Amino acid sequence: MDSHDSASLPRHASRLRLAASLTRMVAVIAAAAATMFAAAATQAAPPASEPFKKPLTTAEILASSAPSDWRALDPQQTLYLELSTGRVVIELTPQFAPHNVANVEALARGGYYDGLAVFRVQDNYVVEWGDAEGRKPVGLAQRTVGAEFERPLRGVSIVRLPDPDTYAPEVGFVDGFPVAADPVLGRAWLVHCYGMVGAGRDNDVDSGGGTELYVVTGQAPRHLDRNVTLLGRVISGMERLSDLPRGTGQLGRYEHPEQRIPVRSVRLEVDVPAAQRTELEVLRTDTPTFLAYVEARRSRHEEWFKVPAGHVDVCNVPIPARPRAGRGQ
Amino acid sequence: MDSHDSASLPRHASRLRLAASLTRMVAVIAAAAATMFAAAATQAAPPASEPFKKPLTTAEILASSAPSDWRALDPQQTLYLELSTGRVVIELTPQFAPHNVANVEALARGGYYDGLAVFRVQDNYVVEWGDAEGRKPVGLAQRTVGAEFERPLRGVSIVRLPDPDTYAPEVGFVDGFPVAADPVLGRAWLVHCYGMVGAGRDNDVDSGGGTELYVVTGQAPRHLDRNVTLLGRVISGMERLSDLPRGTGQLGRYEHPEQRIPVRSVRLEVDVPAAQRTELEVLRTDTPTFLAYVEARRSRHEEWFKVPAGHVDVCNVPIPARPRAGRGQ
Repeated sequence: MDSHDSASLPRHASRLRLAASLTRMVAVIAAAAATMFAAAATQAAPPASEPFKKPLTTAEILASSAPSDWRALDPQQTLYLELSTGRVVIELTPQFAPHNVANVEALARGGYYDGLAVFRVQDNYVVEWGDAEGRKPVGLAQRTVGAEFERPLRGVSIVRLPDPDTYAPEVGFVDGFPVAADPVLGRAWLVHCYGMVGAGRDNDVDSGGGTELYVVTGQAPRHLDRNVTLLGRVISGMERLSDLPRGTGQLGRYEHPEQRIPVRSVRLEVDVPAAQRTELEVLRTDTPTFLAYVEARRSRHEEWFKVPAGHVDVCNVPIPARPRAGRGQ
Repeated sequence: MDSHDSASLPRHASRLRLAASLTRMVAVIAAAAATMFAAAATQAAPPASEPFKKPLTTAEILASSAPSDWRALDPQQTLYLELSTGRVVIELTPQFAPHNVANVEALARGGYYDGLAVFRVQDNYVVEWGDAEGRKPVGLAQRTVGAEFERPLRGVSIVRLPDPDTYAPEVGFVDGFPVAADPVLGRAWLVHCYGMVGAGRDNDVDSGGGTELYVVTGQAPRHLDRNVTLLGRVISGMERLSDLPRGTGQLGRYEHPEQRIPVRSVRLEVDVPAAQRTELEVLRTDTPTFLAYVEARRSRHEEWFKVPAGHVDVCNVPIPARPRAGRGQ
């Protein structure tokens, strides 16, 4: 299976299918234009004299992006998880989980995670690290923090996706994080897409706080939305978690302590000497470039594709990241 | 993060949220009853004198299932992929891709795959094996087979899910395989959920046929639906593919041939001596037990869950499999 190159339109479609397909595409584009794409469409509309252009692919959109389409990660809100195989970079989101994020920062600064281990790797679900025995002192941090499963919708600006979501009335992005919302209830929450980081808890809702952290490594377990406090997202190094041997114990726990993957340390980027940092920038999600990128994900125009989906799931829009301009990685 | 035990209902919900939640649940249940659950509801309705019972969890439903709720895999349509780490069991689906399945069977019987390798492992996407150089003779099989991206809806009986799908008008299951359908177009197709197996192809739609096979290992890449011929599903051994080191080349290809994972052999179960078989059975998807299982996935009642999702994605309903009753694995 390949997926490179350019071009467009279904080739081997029957006329009926093509007609229906086009009808749906028109409807989708109309709906899109009426909502999220209104601003972008206005800006992007070519002058009347300009000839029709082939839609851009995601690669082409990224290649032609401006420096202002990207934002650098904030060293105060970026966590480095150091494994023997290398570094995992996590962006924290105090906007959605201020108290849990603050506690994770306190745990990291107190050296709580250093020497602990990944003790659970459940296939198509999550990887989890922390103190498997739950005994290590937390220092100046707290052992548990109240749940932050959701927040008021007021105060967050969601770039909404136009397609229906199975689980929530609305989905989209806030500052690079996948989000769902219910405007009737006036609530918004982070959603469990691949790479999202959450604070494990026991049965009590307020029993989390960051002493155990998990990362989603499989099909989005959206049934966990609003049931656990999400607080960040893996920006790079995801493959260092996703390729770990699966645990064979209950819930994917390693059955023997020697199977655990040691955590060398967890540090805030701001506490790491400049020369040792992994300085990254991610595509901003509040720009016309991002809207074009989403549209190119909704309907793939690379030559390999024959029937563009015309839709995209909130967990199927990977947010591009790259070394910060002018910095090595 | 845990997810065991029993119980029900949102605890920390405000009255407003609870009311809206219940309203939605009633609407969903009504819709469900009107469609897929009609038969099951009739059969499962307790006598008027029976007291209200706590909803069952998925584990409880499986524990109380009858032998007739399960079906054995057909040795004629079951493929064993043998890696150095063990066996991957794949169920083929001639109902959706008769010509591609027949060709894969011919390739397997001719020893085509033996000694080839996994040469592509793209994180959060696919694992692919075959002849990276595309030169090995195919014997009595064919090098390419016409595309079988979809089939007529007539003739397939879909157990439909009641929740909206982002990509297709209808989704559900046919004989244990995740399926989407468009009743207006009268078409049905297999969907790219975790563990689905497809026949890689080049840009030409008819350039597949099974000489390269891929397995979905990440967030369902539904944009591939109707763009590639899917022909099977991994029933066991998925972790032997999902934990492979990620390729660092283009599209996740291994950059050096020595990184490839050797394929010892691919055999049809019927061609393997009885003593060496992995005899499995999977939960049937056309029974009231399966409907109850789906409902328990839609709204989790284990004590750990506080806000049942009330919805489920077609790719978030893993189909249970186990050693065939009375047989070891």
